[in-house]
Amino acid sequence: MTAGDDPDGELLARVFLSRVLEPGDEVGGRWVREMGAVEVARVLRGGGPQLVGITDKRWAGLLDRAQEAEPERDLAAARDAGIRFLTPGDGEWPGQLDDLGDARPVGLWVRGLPSLRMWALRSVALVGARACTEYGAHMAATLGAGLAERGWVVVSGGAYGVDGAAHRGALGAGGATVAVLACGVDRSYPRGHTELINRIAEQGLVVGELPPGDHPTPSRFIVRNRVIAALTRGTVVVEAAYRSGSLVTARAAQRLGRHTMGVPGPATSGLSAGVHELLRGEAVLVTDAAEVVELVGDMGELAPDRRGPVLPRDLLEPAARRVLAALPGRRAARAGEIARGAQTTPDDAVARLYELRSLGYVERHGDGWKLTRQAMISVREGRGRC
Amino acid sequence: MTAGDDPDGELLARVFLSRVLEPGDEVGGRWVREMGAVEVARVLRGGGPQLVGITDKRWAGLLDRAQEAEPERDLAAARDAGIRFLTPGDGEWPGQLDDLGDARPVGLWVRGLPSLRMWALRSVALVGARACTEYGAHMAATLGAGLAERGWVVVSGGAYGVDGAAHRGALGAGGATVAVLACGVDRSYPRGHTELINRIAEQGLVVGELPPGDHPTPSRFIVRNRVIAALTRGTVVVEAAYRSGSLVTARAAQRLGRHTMGVPGPATSGLSAGVHELLRGEAVLVTDAAEVVELVGDMGELAPDRRGPVLPRDLLEPAARRVLAALPGRRAARAGEIARGAQTTPDDAVARLYELRSLGYVERHGDGWKLTRQAMISVREGRGRC
Repeated sequence: MTAGDDPDGELLARVFLSRVLEPGDEVGGRWVREMGAVEVARVLRGGGPQLVGITDKRWAGLLDRAQEAEPERDLAAARDAGIRFLTPGDGEWPGQLDDLGDARPVGLWVRGLPSLRMWALRSVALVGARACTEYGAHMAATLGAGLAERGWVVVSGGAYGVDGAAHRGALGAGGATVAVLACGVDRSYPRGHTELINRIAEQGLVVGELPPGDHPTPSRFIVRNRVIAALTRGTVVVEAAYRSGSLVTARAAQRLGRHTMGVPGPATSGLSAGVHELLRGEAVLVTDAAEVVELVGDMGELAPDRRGPVLPRDLLEPAARRVLAALPGRRAARAGEIARGAQTTPDDAVARLYELRSLGYVERHGDGWKLTRQAMISVREGRGRC
Repeated sequence: MTAGDDPDGELLARVFLSRVLEPGDEVGGRWVREMGAVEVARVLRGGGPQLVGITDKRWAGLLDRAQEAEPERDLAAARDAGIRFLTPGDGEWPGQLDDLGDARPVGLWVRGLPSLRMWALRSVALVGARACTEYGAHMAATLGAGLAERGWVVVSGGAYGVDGAAHRGALGAGGATVAVLACGVDRSYPRGHTELINRIAEQGLVVGELPPGDHPTPSRFIVRNRVIAALTRGTVVVEAAYRSGSLVTARAAQRLGRHTMGVPGPATSGLSAGVHELLRGEAVLVTDAAEVVELVGDMGELAPDRRGPVLPRDLLEPAARRVLAALPGRRAARAGEIARGAQTTPDDAVARLYELRSLGYVERHGDGWKLTRQAMISVREGRGRC
């Protein structure tokens, strides 16, 4: 990188802080809010003076980590590995993460083609037990596929069980999925999901707060869940025992004002007991993707004709504009055909199509994609602009 | 019977109307409310003049039925068969049926020892699919047993499937159960439940609006459900497909301000689809008897120490007083031991114990029964009265 990419040092300061502060550290978050990331990084690098709200021991730990941090090297290595780093100032930053207040990530590491901001706009979290039953895996996969078919992005944690089934369901339907990891996005955790996570990075997005190479810990899994909850419009818990981590995600979603949903199961199943506990509270019972979309969809979902694109065509990224231009005027086309027309890869086409879906330009139609009615009108009115 | 039992002819008039009017006939119910049962019976017996709110054809049908009715014979035959007829003026009439307005039964035919009024005070309806799954039958039986063990009376419709499992669960736990039939209470419908219904009549109550010998029809099953809903503090639906009759019971319960509950099942099960639809509305998800009692129980359920008997000991029926006197001072005793002490049958003892439970005198304690703390205090204070 050159200094021109980061004139005020904000980017490097946040890369540094993503290495030094633990994810979700609200004391560190308050320092950043009050002093700015650059100043916090300068103090930590300089060894003091000690900032408020922290024990001596923890402060010493931060200073140790600050000494070891090499943000320029982290950033360069990440870029070489096709990983970008988003900060709250970025165009691709998902603004809804700001709802986390001082627990907002200092930045996000991202692997994958699509715009995280665009994808997160129409996303739903599907989470649940690692050691799920066959029923749980079936429901997660079915919901993942059903949401993808309705143009929704499926967000989960990349874990075994429900998470993996949800990602696979979305991918299998040619759909969009985001894995939010509790480790560096260059790592595959769990090991057995290496192939799945690489496939998500190709066809979707792999996202995390921790810098490349960093490892997961039990508390990092729990803290990661708030990002899943905040990114999405709602969280569906598929199977969860009492005191399961996915209930943490659901309760975070509730606190953030997102929709919380649960898939019922037999009352005799311990792996549904946590979900039933949720459903006895505020959460809404859902049995299929249509019921999820009914809840998280905006009015436009119910009356699609009246909703137009939310961003003028001129402001679209060139890649998205090319894909939009490759859509046939009236009929639906498959992603492969659209990719050929836009002279790009099918994965890139799918990435852009879900972005355009979030913006109201296109909708899924069975296996294919077509312009929305409003987009057709705007094509006719402003054809010269494309 | 003698004229002294029914000086104003109200009882016979209502026996007559229970034969002539269809259960739940709100037009007939309005006539009774406005003119009184005796006058309505007189007009119908006399062939007119035609009352308001009814077509000529339906009026002619009522007159035909009126010609055939023989209330004195019905009543005598019922008494011979151990069946009594309750009217709204009776001490045993469950007052909560008045919530049905003009759809209130003109009277109820009852087989069994206990007081319907007392038993209904602490009762819960368990209803569901006839063609239930093994899971549904298991849940109905477990809930039936669990409610009985907590001193609650289980009300259901005597049908195959969930109903039968609920009754059997309660009976198997030495508990109290009421079958509300859509036919005469001397009939066993369905045939395969003859033994079960006879057992319920011995250990509990068999109740219905239709006079002895009358048969069920599809609409009578539906209309019967409002009685189940109105009698109880809440209705639990165990398994139900879309458009199932047990959803009618649940919605009647909702309209009557009773608690409505549903037992979740796999989202893939058509026999849970109706329950899940309910749970997406106002109904509360329940997975065990403790959750049901938590909802339908009054404050006393949560703080039993502060609740005393609701009826002075002097006003108890002699049979109930004898059973109460047979309870040991402090420890719990089984129904059989109490029955011997009260010189009565175990079935009669159980009938009285659940009445006394409704009144706050006793509570179940595992397999046995003991005086509540408040009852012990009142025994000490007023021992001379017993």
